[in-house]
Amino acid sequence: MSSENRSAQPRTIFDRIVAGEAPCYKLYEDDKVLAFLDIAPLSPGHTLVIPKESRSFLHELSEESAAALGRVLPRLCRAVCAATGARDYNVLQNNGAAAHQAVLHVHFHIIPRIHDAGLGVGWKAGRLEPEPAADLVVRIRARLG
Amino acid sequence: MSSENRSAQPRTIFDRIVAGEAPCYKLYEDDKVLAFLDIAPLSPGHTLVIPKESRSFLHELSEESAAALGRVLPRLCRAVCAATGARDYNVLQNNGAAAHQAVLHVHFHIIPRIHDAGLGVGWKAGRLEPEPAADLVVRIRARLG
Repeated sequence: MSSENRSAQPRTIFDRIVAGEAPCYKLYEDDKVLAFLDIAPLSPGHTLVIPKESRSFLHELSEESAAALGRVLPRLCRAVCAATGARDYNVLQNNGAAAHQAVLHVHFHIIPRIHDAGLGVGWKAGRLEPEPAADLVVRIRARLG
Repeated sequence: MSSENRSAQPRTIFDRIVAGEAPCYKLYEDDKVLAFLDIAPLSPGHTLVIPKESRSFLHELSEESAAALGRVLPRLCRAVCAATGARDYNVLQNNGAAAHQAVLHVHFHIIPRIHDAGLGVGWKAGRLEPEPAADLVVRIRARLG
């Protein structure tokens, strides 16, 4: 699949930040992960957590990078909340333009909810009916291998 | 902190699902993680990915559980997209009632974007000014230890 072809990966501003070619308000760094403040924040403390591995979408990311991102999220969330006084927050990761992704490099947003500032969440929930549910289970499990 | 006190943790429907006391449309399970279909989906294939560890909020979760969740997300996203035909999707994790959390057990939503169905995203971005940014960096980094 195309994710195996590194040369097909567009170079984004986040690659330049990882390479030290563009500045950022850096919060955290290890060998696989970088975290910095979003320059267009939804609320104070809005943080981006990215893999150094250059992939556009989460489904393309290696398990190693994805595990490293997951591992550091609780610690970063604690620090962002403690520093901002936020109690509630959203962690959001968008894939594709229709899902509101702006930069084509995997990134997790940590978005504090501070009074009215934060992520706007629209939630038009349906109901899962047994027959389509059973069909989805078969189809998704088949693709998990 | 209270997260160290397991007895203070409310028992939720997700604990009952993990324990096998309540049913779910199970998609995936390993020693630390369970994934199943959301019964009130925003779109077909809306999936929940939860740690077996019983914690209300992401900032309370152990690094081991958080890494295990992160590790399996790309694989689950690939399977959900392949099974539903979705190309775009959101991964969302809510903490606290003001951030739209309904069940007090950490859960990541994988929400396919299929035409108009999916997550509604409200995005009122501000601009990060140098002085408050520098102040936030100092305060967040201090709390990362």
